[in-house]
Amino acid sequence: MKKYLKHHEWYIIEEGFDPHLNRISESVFSIGNGRMGQRANFEEDFTGDTHQGTYVAGVYYPDKTRVGWWKNGYPEYFAKVLNAPSWIGIKVKIGDQVLDLAKCKVANFVRVLDMKQGLLHRSFEATFTDGKKVEIDSKRFCSMADGEVGAIRYSIKPINFSSTASITLAIDADVVNKDSNYDEKFWEEVHQESQAGWAIVNAQTKKTFFQVCTGMEYRFEAEGKLINGKVSTNVKAKYADNVVDVELKEGVEFIVYKYAAVLSSENHKKDSLVKLCRDKLNESVRISFTKLFESHAAVWAHKWEECDITIDGDIAAQQGIRFNIFQLTQTYTGEDERLNIGPKGFTGEKYGGSTYWDTEAYCLPFYLSTADPKVARNLLVYRYKHLPKAIENAKKLGFKDGAAFYPFVTMNGEECHNEWEITFEEVHRTSAMAYAIRDYINYTGDVGYLNEFGLEVLIGISRFWAQRVNWSTDKDKYVMLGVTGPNEYENNINNNWYTNYLAAWTLRYSMWAIEQVKKSDAKRYGVISTKVSFKEIEETSKWKDISDKMYYAEDPKRGVFLQQDGFLDKELLTVADLNPEDTPLNQKWSWDRILRSCFIKQADVLQCMYLFEEDFTNEQIKRNFDFYEPMTVHESSLSPCVHVILASKIGYKDQAYEFYLRTARLDLDDYNNDTEDGCHITSMAGTWMSLVKGFGGMKILDDKLYFNPYLPVQWKSYSFRIEFRGRVIKVKVSKDKTETVLESGEPLSIQLSGKEVKLK
Amino acid sequence: MKKYLKHHEWYIIEEGFDPHLNRISESVFSIGNGRMGQRANFEEDFTGDTHQGTYVAGVYYPDKTRVGWWKNGYPEYFAKVLNAPSWIGIKVKIGDQVLDLAKCKVANFVRVLDMKQGLLHRSFEATFTDGKKVEIDSKRFCSMADGEVGAIRYSIKPINFSSTASITLAIDADVVNKDSNYDEKFWEEVHQESQAGWAIVNAQTKKTFFQVCTGMEYRFEAEGKLINGKVSTNVKAKYADNVVDVELKEGVEFIVYKYAAVLSSENHKKDSLVKLCRDKLNESVRISFTKLFESHAAVWAHKWEECDITIDGDIAAQQGIRFNIFQLTQTYTGEDERLNIGPKGFTGEKYGGSTYWDTEAYCLPFYLSTADPKVARNLLVYRYKHLPKAIENAKKLGFKDGAAFYPFVTMNGEECHNEWEITFEEVHRTSAMAYAIRDYINYTGDVGYLNEFGLEVLIGISRFWAQRVNWSTDKDKYVMLGVTGPNEYENNINNNWYTNYLAAWTLRYSMWAIEQVKKSDAKRYGVISTKVSFKEIEETSKWKDISDKMYYAEDPKRGVFLQQDGFLDKELLTVADLNPEDTPLNQKWSWDRILRSCFIKQADVLQCMYLFEEDFTNEQIKRNFDFYEPMTVHESSLSPCVHVILASKIGYKDQAYEFYLRTARLDLDDYNNDTEDGCHITSMAGTWMSLVKGFGGMKILDDKLYFNPYLPVQWKSYSFRIEFRGRVIKVKVSKDKTETVLESGEPLSIQLSGKEVKLK
Repeated sequence: MKKYLKHHEWYIIEEGFDPHLNRISESVFSIGNGRMGQRANFEEDFTGDTHQGTYVAGVYYPDKTRVGWWKNGYPEYFAKVLNAPSWIGIKVKIGDQVLDLAKCKVANFVRVLDMKQGLLHRSFEATFTDGKKVEIDSKRFCSMADGEVGAIRYSIKPINFSSTASITLAIDADVVNKDSNYDEKFWEEVHQESQAGWAIVNAQTKKTFFQVCTGMEYRFEAEGKLINGKVSTNVKAKYADNVVDVELKEGVEFIVYKYAAVLSSENHKKDSLVKLCRDKLNESVRISFTKLFESHAAVWAHKWEECDITIDGDIAAQQGIRFNIFQLTQTYTGEDERLNIGPKGFTGEKYGGSTYWDTEAYCLPFYLSTADPKVARNLLVYRYKHLPKAIENAKKLGFKDGAAFYPFVTMNGEECHNEWEITFEEVHRTSAMAYAIRDYINYTGDVGYLNEFGLEVLIGISRFWAQRVNWSTDKDKYVMLGVTGPNEYENNINNNWYTNYLAAWTLRYSMWAIEQVKKSDAKRYGVISTKVSFKEIEETSKWKDISDKMYYAEDPKRGVFLQQDGFLDKELLTVADLNPEDTPLNQKWSWDRILRSCFIKQADVLQCMYLFEEDFTNEQIKRNFDFYEPMTVHESSLSPCVHVILASKIGYKDQAYEFYLRTARLDLDDYNNDTEDGCHITSMAGTWMSLVKGFGGMKILDDKLYFNPYLPVQWKSYSFRIEFRGRVIKVKVSKDKTETVLESGEPLSIQLSGKEVKLK
Repeated sequence: MKKYLKHHEWYIIEEGFDPHLNRISESVFSIGNGRMGQRANFEEDFTGDTHQGTYVAGVYYPDKTRVGWWKNGYPEYFAKVLNAPSWIGIKVKIGDQVLDLAKCKVANFVRVLDMKQGLLHRSFEATFTDGKKVEIDSKRFCSMADGEVGAIRYSIKPINFSSTASITLAIDADVVNKDSNYDEKFWEEVHQESQAGWAIVNAQTKKTFFQVCTGMEYRFEAEGKLINGKVSTNVKAKYADNVVDVELKEGVEFIVYKYAAVLSSENHKKDSLVKLCRDKLNESVRISFTKLFESHAAVWAHKWEECDITIDGDIAAQQGIRFNIFQLTQTYTGEDERLNIGPKGFTGEKYGGSTYWDTEAYCLPFYLSTADPKVARNLLVYRYKHLPKAIENAKKLGFKDGAAFYPFVTMNGEECHNEWEITFEEVHRTSAMAYAIRDYINYTGDVGYLNEFGLEVLIGISRFWAQRVNWSTDKDKYVMLGVTGPNEYENNINNNWYTNYLAAWTLRYSMWAIEQVKKSDAKRYGVISTKVSFKEIEETSKWKDISDKMYYAEDPKRGVFLQQDGFLDKELLTVADLNPEDTPLNQKWSWDRILRSCFIKQADVLQCMYLFEEDFTNEQIKRNFDFYEPMTVHESSLSPCVHVILASKIGYKDQAYEFYLRTARLDLDDYNNDTEDGCHITSMAGTWMSLVKGFGGMKILDDKLYFNPYLPVQWKSYSFRIEFRGRVIKVKVSKDKTETVLESGEPLSIQLSGKEVKLK
């Protein structure tokens, strides 16, 4: 845990340059626009410790898998989020001296992330070894108004000298991935070109043949006038630049405007990329930095209008929630149904792959509540399009007859993760797709989604469960053997309560969905039924039998559900019993020790109670919370948010607040000592849920919206907005009252703290 | 399964050259002498499919580990059995044409392994594209009389031409390992030298800095006379040769004698290697091929005297058992306590590492019964010397106070395997070391071994178990969570019956051992006790408590012990229910499917009953055999032998015979389609046990030797020898009678088929 960032409502602020914190800041200050993004690397050269990262959505590399002992059914590759060509480079050379924060004396360093406007701002004073001093001020953004455009305003002000200088403006595709398995580079050259004033590099990924064409054009300005310098152009494989000789005058700000265009073959024909890139650059220069930024900031203003949460009386909490919303918003805009929400977004490359169950289990409610329903719908359609691959994936593992097993990690629907205990056994994720359908329909009322896409997915998943369970003659119940639950600190266990519950629910929900589709459009039902060779009577009677006779482990004495068979054989300690030197367990203990201990990465019995809270009494939730929470080490970033929600529900307000801070400021305060690898993007949606579903007590039940809010004692008030069935409702919770305002849409009734309220 | 080898009492015979079978034959026909060995690669060039392998005992490489997701506690490296410098190369060039079986027409190809004399013999007729025809006859051996010497007699007979020819005699250290993780080469040059008549290459392994100095000297002979040719010498990095121009005369046999010396820095000072290698070569040439071979064959004659098993009336079975004994004998001679028995011996490099629990659990009885007790003792001392590393290994996993956790795979005592479910959880192996001590004392009566080495090892292992179990308040018993039993088709299970049983036994045995040492030498006990900081009362009372209150899963209804908790939740099918296309499961099913099925790689409940047969009634064994055997797929080569022994015990004679053939001819008939990787050396000891302990009903109980033999109906008779407490007893079982003869040593009483027999 580190606390070096200043608290502020709208800004993230780092004052003073500490090289040891640089990688963390590079993650936290990342910027993006849904299409592309980058870590907060410096524009000028930097020979100190840094993790360079520029990312383009949807562009990945299937790196040859690396695994100890090959297991039958493993995927051939592990998809890597690719470090893409960098367009930020502005090398500054004054005389013989290169500006490099690792070599100069640095003063007044400030790095600011302006979340309101989506701007990365940095300024500092650097003193060279010969005493020359410059002031640098850099502003950078990836345009939310045009996903293919980025721009930098970089000013250089000599304080105590005048001198010639050379400025190098580069596009560099000769980049490496930190977690390449075999130290390969993944980009190959296609085209590079440098002319006075601009440069372009078109590079192609190996194997996947994505092309990303990255170009830059620039302008210099001083004392309000355009400046030209002597240009030399350089080109080598996967690299192009302009080196420009200019004069710097003491006390005069010399401004570099660098415009970038990043075009991917996912959106354009390959042979048009270079031309379109040139056009885009021309256009950007014509529009100018200032106007580009205005359009960009206007989009942000609108976004904040939709999804801002205010917290009065607690700046750390306010900053935390906005940081989470900011990162989520710039990671995924919902405009492209081929994209998804990577666990690190555009802030790092760890974990590879773009899509985890995190999207459905954690992120969906955020987008459903704060954006146009088509944003969330696109996330669902993404999985619908992967259905054939999910069926193929199931086949590889021996399932048949159209059973669908969604991958644990994917780029294109294929599984690309290979630890057997996860890949093959963390099966619950396949039902996250079913739960997402329920969530989507609950929020939007769009039951018709079942007819179009949903039912096919549900049938596939239900078929998987019907084959994955087996009948235990010993228990006289259906059991599910050899799984890993969301609590990944247990592997290959039997009858994980969460998984069994979710499987049985999925079967019931699918049967309900069948009735819905039949009822609303019998013909369409026939089409789907034929398409998937559905034997309705035979299959659904099996589903019914399984969901009726599913086995759930319980401890009647304690009145708790058991995470898995045999859980009570463990030595039941609590986190308080642990030597603090032993945590985080995943860094200190060997894997077997973690597995046989009672300690929980994220509590999956509780997670299930959160997902299906209507199925359980508060008394039940309380008993299980009291049993599992003390054993939970929260070493998954996805863990604390669920605890906020349940703690709120059962009145454990202090705990709820504590967990809230932990999730809201996870990356800002580097709670888990891993922010340097990138931010925990998907768990940020959990932070949003903590507040809205936890403190706000928001839920949807039987087509009705519920709030049951309370105000943490540390706060004066808080407010949030919810989109629900065509309405926007603003909720403001203060000490004495809760205001609910219908900002747009038709009147509706909601339940507020147990009372019906009509909103007009 | 393949059946291309001819049956013969003493020979393994391959007739005709089928390139597709070449890798299998290269494994089967391997030769060695405990110090070094090699696959049956061809001396002349061969561009066809081949797996080149030459191995020097004790020389390994710590290859950088390769693993999917790093788990805390994993070892840094995976030790590789190294493909060592090759000394067999004899390149034959006639005119412009290189002799190469992949390019010539081959006729009358015969490859013979003469097991009686330890000789690899190969002859064939090759026709070049221009019609020239030669007859080749090659004989090769690694001397059992001098472990550093090998020799080849290679004769070339032109059938239909006379011609000049060039013969290249090489030493080549520029070799690769098939299973190198990063395609590295592991040898570096130290010295290479070539003079007319001889060449030497001294090479060193990276990281481990073993030096292996390999030299060759040669003589040519034709028509009974020494021949000289024009010699050119060549040297390059890690390679040296002589190329000799000679005249071949039609119809005249031209004989190459190539003498090799292989000296390792494990046995000599590095700076003396080259000189000693020269000396050894000189000496070999002086002695001559014929005399070297005579000494070698004499050692084999003596070995066979000790350990031969005869089977009358079944040549396939006779050949099978001799092949197993032959390979075991040439893999490990017991002369060097630093060495051990690798799973592939000198026949391949798969699995890496030299030492598995196979040694203690399978191989020890063979060496105890057929060789001087010091051979087996050296195997025990090997583990004693690794005790500090076993304690370190336990520490890495969080154990303390001198707990010893022996590695799953090792070269030098360190763990070098890294699948968590094996490395961290296949814990039973550590007690194999304890069982080996019991076995050794049972055979030899040498209780004094406890004083010298045994007790320390037992205390370390017992301390491990005392920490590895935990008290289950739920069961009111000690339980053992998160283990993998010998049946590796279950991972991370709870209360593996085998492991719990072995752990409890170890604790009891250690307490017995303490009493033995105390009684025989109280002072020595004090020394050990101080050395290991033993808190006798506290520790042993804990041990007693655990062994008294250990939990064992049982099914009272069926009257069987349960392999693990929850076993009865599985769908209880039998191998007969499997679609034959689905086997072997490990090649056809995904891992999760194997894990949640009832199918068993090797039945560990049965294995435990074999190890402790005195603890169980025949009725119990029968019930458990009837339950587990039908689910056992025997996909471990270590499986069938245990089934022979138990099936014999409970009178299932047909099954016993069937399993016997499967184990005895596993490699000869390539049962598991994997002999091309090398032979299953350690399971060969199981074959020996099958016959002696299965058919022969041999066991040792309360210091007494028991036989309870029967004759498989397929045989006329069989005989074997047993060393027991200074005696050699020959047992011959015929249809009507069993003869037991005391061949040497003091008179003793044995139990034969339930009756006491006095042997004089």
